[in-house]
Formats: sequence, C-alpha cells, structure tokens
Amino acid sequence: MSAKADSLRLRSTPRSSDPDSVERILGSNRLFSAEEITVARELVEDRIVEGSRSEYHLLFADRGGETLAFACFGSVPLTRSSWDLYWIAVEHSHRGRGLGSRLLAKVETLIEARGGERLYIETSGRPDYEDTRRFYESHRCQRVAEYPDFYAPGDDKVVFMRRLREPHAEGPGRVD
Amino acid sequence: MSAKADSLRLRSTPRSSDPDSVERILGSNRLFSAEEITVARELVEDRIVEGSRSEYHLLFADRGGETLAFACFGSVPLTRSSWDLYWIAVEHSHRGRGLGSRLLAKVETLIEARGGERLYIETSGRPDYEDTRRFYESHRCQRVAEYPDFYAPGDDKVVFMRRLREPHAEGPGRVD
Repeated sequence: MSAKADSLRLRSTPRSSDPDSVERILGSNRLFSAEEITVARELVEDRIVEGSRSEYHLLFADRGGETLAFACFGSVPLTRSSWDLYWIAVEHSHRGRGLGSRLLAKVETLIEARGGERLYIETSGRPDYEDTRRFYESHRCQRVAEYPDFYAPGDDKVVFMRRLREPHAEGPGRVD
Repeated sequence: MSAKADSLRLRSTPRSSDPDSVERILGSNRLFSAEEITVARELVEDRIVEGSRSEYHLLFADRGGETLAFACFGSVPLTRSSWDLYWIAVEHSHRGRGLGSRLLAKVETLIEARGGERLYIETSGRPDYEDTRRFYESHRCQRVAEYPDFYAPGDDKVVFMRRLREPHAEGPGRVD
C-alpha cells in the first residue's frame, strides 16, 4: 500500500455507502443500542437526501479507502453561536490512534469558520462511557451540567462544553 | 354569554386556525422573536400535517370560541421516560388567571399517562424572563442546569425539571 493510500483523509460530503459505514462503526463499539444506531443512520441518510439544506453536518475519516470514523454536528436553532456535536465515533479496532482527536479538531475548525463560539456535547454518565468522558475532558471540554436518570434509571446525561475560537492544534487531514 | 361558553376547554387535536392562534398568542407577549414565532408555527403545522405521527404533542386552551393559550411537548428521543416542554404560552391579556397552571397540570397528566417520569423545560436567564422562571419555580420545577451565554452573549439557558408521577392538583379542563 502506498504512503498516499495510508494517509488519513477527512471529507464533509457524504457517499451512498456512508449509512452502512456509520452502522459498522457504531456497531463495532459496544456502547450503542440498535435504536441509537438507527437514529445515526437516519441522520446520514437525511444529509444525503437533503444535501446542504440538511441541518446536520458530517465529517468522515477515510484511510486506504475505508471509512474509520465519523462526526455529526449542527448549529442549535434559535441561538446566536451555539453548536451541538451529536456523534463522534471511531471504529473500535482503530481507537487509541488519535482519529477522534483529529476529527474533533476539524469539527471545531469548521464550526469556527461558520461563527460558532460554543460546542455542546451530551453523553452518558454510565461507567462504560468513562473513556468517552475522559476523551472530552482531555480535549478541553468542560463538564457543564449533569441530569440524573435522564436516559434511564441510573443512566445520567452529562453535558460538556468546548469554548471555540481559542487556539488549538489542528490535524493535517484534508477536507473535500 | 352562557356559563358554558365561559368555561375553559382543553383540546389536544389541532385545528387549521391554530397556527394563526399560536402566532397571535406569542405575538401578544413581548418575549418572542419573529424567528421563534415562525418555529412555533411550524411545529403546529407539522402536527396538523403529520397527525399523531408527529413527534409534537399539542394542548390548546379555548374559552368562548377563542384560543387563549397553548402548550407543545414531546418525548425526548433515546430516553426511557424523559419529556421536553417546548412551549407554554398564554395570550398576554389573559395572563395571571391560572391558565398556564391549568395547561401545565394537564400536560403533566398526559405525559404521565404515557409513562413519562421527568419533564424538562428550557428557558432564558434574561431579566425579562423572570416571570417565566418564577412560574416554573412555583410549580415545583427544579432548576437543574444553567448554560451561560447559550442563546447569545448575556442570554443564558436555564433548565428546569419537573419530576412527574407525584400527586398534583389537576385542573378540571376537559380534553377532546
């Protein structure tokens, strides 16, 4: 495999194979329910059908022709400059190699370019989400709210906020 | 006007005149922007077009043939029993007569009947929303989170939560 094929490429424009890629990526982790995976597929399908009219923005990370990670985000309606990160997920066998950091940095850059000032991220307080919470904490996201039993009894919602327009390291990934 | 015509009636099924009623009710208060009113109209129109498939539940309060107040609410996707109250608003000249309390009590009853256990309400921290925040506080809603500058600089988001399935006074309003 050439060096070029090995390099990571980031792209915003979805392909028809992306709903399946998203299902594979989420399914490779054990965190997500069938219902959550269905919702994520639908977001991607909505973006493919609606094009740039969709309220969902996507970012995919490809290497060697394979899609290994994705993020989905959008501006919060009726706010001046707040955005939500709906999903960020990395194929399980490719975790721990900085793919999530690269995606998050590029998401931040894209949102900043559209005038965004705050990125909110909702996640679970369950023990099996500890790595996820640690990921956000180590990427300068502040824990700003907790909602006990929000998702289900014993499954709290934890909200992080990343203040944008601050200097941050940006990955070299190219966006199509 | 007969006593019957004076009595308050609550109904869940929307009418074709309701988008205009919602616009009139929100416009009578000075709190809401043109964009917020447009979004509220669209929720009601979505419910009329989609029928019970819509994710939005509506409740209107009519008296003497006039629609004086409304509420819009829905279950939070991917949660076991959490619900959002998107809107509750009373025609300005009819405020202070318990209409909001009657609507909120009925919304709670309807959500409880569908297994809901928690009702979340997002509102603004701006000084002109002080009456709104006091309304929720006086209806056993707890302030559970605050997001500085969420809507705009100086315009915080304040989140209240009302725990359901507790005894509460329910208004006598009838729901069609």
